Amino acid sequence: MADYKAPVNETLFVLNDLLNFSQLNDIPEFAEATPDMVEAVVTEGGKFAAEVFAPINRTGDLAGSHAVDGEVVTAPGFKEAYQLFMDNGWLSLAQDPNYGGQGLPFTLHMAVSEYWDGANMAMALCPMLAAGAIDAFGAHASDDLKDIYLEKLISGEWTASMCLTESHAGSDLSNLKTKATPAVNDQHGEHYLLKGQKIFITWGEHDMTENIVHLVLAPLVDAPAGVKGLSLFVLPKYFVLEDGSLGDRNDIQVVSTEHKLGINASPTCVMAFGEKQGAVAYMIGEPGQGLTCMFTLMNHARLEVGLEGVGLSERAYQDAVEYARERIQGRHPETGEATAIIEHADVQRMLMQMKSCIDAMRALCFDASISHDLRGHAQNAEQKDYHAKRFALLTPITKAWCTELVNEVTSLALQVHGGMGYIEETGVAQHYRDARITGIYEGANGIQANDLLGRKLVRDQGAGFNALMAELESTLNATESNANLSTIATHLKEAKQTLQETAQFVLDNADSHAKFEGAVSFNFLMQMGFVLGAWYHLRSAAIASDQLQNSASDANFMQQKIAAANFYTSQLLPRAAAYGAAVRDGGKYNCELKSEYFI
Amino acid sequence: MADYKAPVNETLFVLNDLLNFSQLNDIPEFAEATPDMVEAVVTEGGKFAAEVFAPINRTGDLAGSHAVDGEVVTAPGFKEAYQLFMDNGWLSLAQDPNYGGQGLPFTLHMAVSEYWDGANMAMALCPMLAAGAIDAFGAHASDDLKDIYLEKLISGEWTASMCLTESHAGSDLSNLKTKATPAVNDQHGEHYLLKGQKIFITWGEHDMTENIVHLVLAPLVDAPAGVKGLSLFVLPKYFVLEDGSLGDRNDIQVVSTEHKLGINASPTCVMAFGEKQGAVAYMIGEPGQGLTCMFTLMNHARLEVGLEGVGLSERAYQDAVEYARERIQGRHPETGEATAIIEHADVQRMLMQMKSCIDAMRALCFDASISHDLRGHAQNAEQKDYHAKRFALLTPITKAWCTELVNEVTSLALQVHGGMGYIEETGVAQHYRDARITGIYEGANGIQANDLLGRKLVRDQGAGFNALMAELESTLNATESNANLSTIATHLKEAKQTLQETAQFVLDNADSHAKFEGAVSFNFLMQMGFVLGAWYHLRSAAIASDQLQNSASDANFMQQKIAAANFYTSQLLPRAAAYGAAVRDGGKYNCELKSEYFI
Repeated sequence: MADYKAPVNETLFVLNDLLNFSQLNDIPEFAEATPDMVEAVVTEGGKFAAEVFAPINRTGDLAGSHAVDGEVVTAPGFKEAYQLFMDNGWLSLAQDPNYGGQGLPFTLHMAVSEYWDGANMAMALCPMLAAGAIDAFGAHASDDLKDIYLEKLISGEWTASMCLTESHAGSDLSNLKTKATPAVNDQHGEHYLLKGQKIFITWGEHDMTENIVHLVLAPLVDAPAGVKGLSLFVLPKYFVLEDGSLGDRNDIQVVSTEHKLGINASPTCVMAFGEKQGAVAYMIGEPGQGLTCMFTLMNHARLEVGLEGVGLSERAYQDAVEYARERIQGRHPETGEATAIIEHADVQRMLMQMKSCIDAMRALCFDASISHDLRGHAQNAEQKDYHAKRFALLTPITKAWCTELVNEVTSLALQVHGGMGYIEETGVAQHYRDARITGIYEGANGIQANDLLGRKLVRDQGAGFNALMAELESTLNATESNANLSTIATHLKEAKQTLQETAQFVLDNADSHAKFEGAVSFNFLMQMGFVLGAWYHLRSAAIASDQLQNSASDANFMQQKIAAANFYTSQLLPRAAAYGAAVRDGGKYNCELKSEYFI
Repeated sequence: MADYKAPVNETLFVLNDLLNFSQLNDIPEFAEATPDMVEAVVTEGGKFAAEVFAPINRTGDLAGSHAVDGEVVTAPGFKEAYQLFMDNGWLSLAQDPNYGGQGLPFTLHMAVSEYWDGANMAMALCPMLAAGAIDAFGAHASDDLKDIYLEKLISGEWTASMCLTESHAGSDLSNLKTKATPAVNDQHGEHYLLKGQKIFITWGEHDMTENIVHLVLAPLVDAPAGVKGLSLFVLPKYFVLEDGSLGDRNDIQVVSTEHKLGINASPTCVMAFGEKQGAVAYMIGEPGQGLTCMFTLMNHARLEVGLEGVGLSERAYQDAVEYARERIQGRHPETGEATAIIEHADVQRMLMQMKSCIDAMRALCFDASISHDLRGHAQNAEQKDYHAKRFALLTPITKAWCTELVNEVTSLALQVHGGMGYIEETGVAQHYRDARITGIYEGANGIQANDLLGRKLVRDQGAGFNALMAELESTLNATESNANLSTIATHLKEAKQTLQETAQFVLDNADSHAKFEGAVSFNFLMQMGFVLGAWYHLRSAAIASDQLQNSASDANFMQQKIAAANFYTSQLLPRAAAYGAAVRDGGKYNCELKSEYFI
């Protein structure tokens, strides 16, 4: 297994050259996020990931984090690594300065988060969930609650969990059995008592911090049925006294941890709330607004899960390249000499497939992140509105497309290793196992596809989609004169046309059948992902082509960008047409399917 | 996890209706293989797999089989299950009656082998390797060696291993360090002494039988370098005395077993030969003919590995269907009532994708098997020759296409389970882990693709390929008049045309660049796999359409075949065009790739 090397050059290329990060720096709140500052942050982040998180990735997988007698014992080294992470302030990068945050752009937080994911995804999940909780707190909690919790969460002194799922309620949260009852007493003032059990609670219990803040979704006892009856509550593991010190323990217990396919160092807990006297809880936001509050957290988390796809893919790619350079096998196709397998055309195909997917995925993640920053901080309302819609459109694609591809990319990395890839000691199998959860949690990819099709395409009759297509059109116009890019551009132009026809087909048929949207949504999402990927590749290649003409110092890097763009658009982009055909020619067969056929 | 149910109806439909198994029954040697006999064998095989092998699949995964103090302790229940398997004569089904075999068609052996793979792939690997060794023995060993070993191998009293790989020699066997030295003495007569270490030896050591027969590939000490210097040797774990009883132990030791991603109950051994006085070996076939002999074994094993893809996919599909029927979540798209997720369109898409892939994969495996039977037993030389070439063409596609798809099918099964799929207790994650080796062993899929393109397409200038395309053409002609099939047939017709154009492109450019074949072979193989799959679907749908018109008793089954054919050709077959485009438009970018780009 290769040592993890944070892809700092790739990060800087995407942020600065491809996505014009300086547009964020131009915003007064982000005046500190200068190019020098960005480079310093990602360089230091890369070092930290490589030196602190990466070395305990495989040992964490082997040891796991387990519930023992009502406590969770984390894998060796995790507590110390988390402490360093916190001490270095990595969690507070993009957080509110009023509560100790550094106030830098979210996009910069994403840039270094890719490194946490690549170095140690099981560990990275812990601060990732905290960041989501901080968002929900910041947007919806009362000032009193913020004052108690926000600074500790932002500093990382306390972590957070996100408690939605119950054993009978996963994608559908309308029938939760955990209930909240209003209560009041001297010790806790006005509060609620929660009773119920939640499952799949990532980092729900652990020994890395002295307190854990649980965000729990539950209806009030007298709430109306369905998701509109849900409220969001905060429950500390230990009560917080007026002076900020910790008091008694709340009635919250870890019941067990799951034996999973991967991310074994991340404890996935069954949590029992209120098995004794009732767990003391405080409401965030208004009664019945729980799902809205939770979505603040989840939209954030969805981008970060897409990013996990990037981080793991990059890590697996690095392993594959290193192995391919070292493994001698067969004859060089041109010289006939014994050769490292990296010279074999089929191995190069696999590596370039990985690489060109990663470049596209990373660009998509950071592009969505920039819209996330601009929807909050752009300098006029029109721009804010534009990027709010753009962010909403890109979020489900980022989450689902990147997490579908990561399975393929990590699988290719395993394949490059041959039989050694199947041996756990090699380390690449762990990436393949870790990756598989990303398509499931934070909204399974089928849910993302439904969101894209129903809420983001059909509901506004394609307005947001058309606006994005206009951005693609303008790239095509801008690159038209560069003959070096004509093949890439031609492929993108055709794929964009087919995508637009497919979108129109979807809009025309959305009401044709009760099953129509569900029948075609996944294929539509995948088609759109591949087309957007080609768009980023064309832009990358255009930049690389310019820089090569100006005798760039890193010519290999720029040549690779052009090669990746050619490879992607000629060998992977054709899949977009296949997905499009599945929508247009195949959707009706899905509508006609009957459950009796599955025998 | 669903109990495993052998898909007997599917097997009989493919064998009898789709592939006209009776053509084998018409051959005098196979006179016993009547329809009743076939039905009885697969029914009993199905019961055996479900009752004996399936119950120890997950326990075997948990316990594993491990080397302890120079012996391998197999997972609980494996020894007893193997004994029952042997007692029931399952191994001898298609073997030579001169050595105790039952002399039935190989295709029937494959039909039940799918059940062993689906029920317990780790276990099934043991008799699968023995079957390969029996083939190599039957084709190449001297009568003396056959007399000593063949009956015991056919009965299953002894198992066999296949020892090729060394740590520095996997896909490329030209530089093996294990060497054989001629020797002679009173105890063993003329023999060879082997010294060396082999890795990745599946079931190389275990406690299920009293003897193990190792087939080892190695050069003689004075052999010329390269694969032409390799010979094949047989080495028993215990020497066989003249009366057939077992004598002393040979100088062969298991060094360790690997910690793998999956198939944990199948011990993957590092084997040391001749660490003391030298391991006593006998040559099979002639000096320098080792690879030829081994290929007899490997071609056989390649079909069986493709079949593992089918068996595991079927098992995962059954789990997914059962879960989808039981899991209540969300609202029925038409009635709005709480519903099992099997009613959701996106879940139906996933299930039908799995199902339609499995149908196509199974048909391909058994079609290749029938050609295997006919190349040996057809009633005239012309037919034998036709099927020898057809078998050679279909083998790499069967191996690689089915083992690529099994990753996707088992992944979809996991996805249908949502978060539960990621929990090991559910059982579906095991299928995903077990499946991943199939694309690697018995010739990694890149090697299969090279074989298809170089040896099977280019070498005979497309003759075998054209013959197969003529078979597709005749199906298209025969179904032209059935309006119910016109959409399916139109899709196939277009895909066949594109495949033929792609093949012509490959033939025209094969010599254009030293890297060309390696650059396009994988995509060509995948394209061809998807087109062949559509061919089987059209034929299935044609049969189902006929049977429905004749008021078939199993209307749901026949409706499902038509639905699967429509789904496959409209939603999966478009991928063939994408792979074809990657060959035609993309091959040149692969030829232009440089190892320096992978940074």
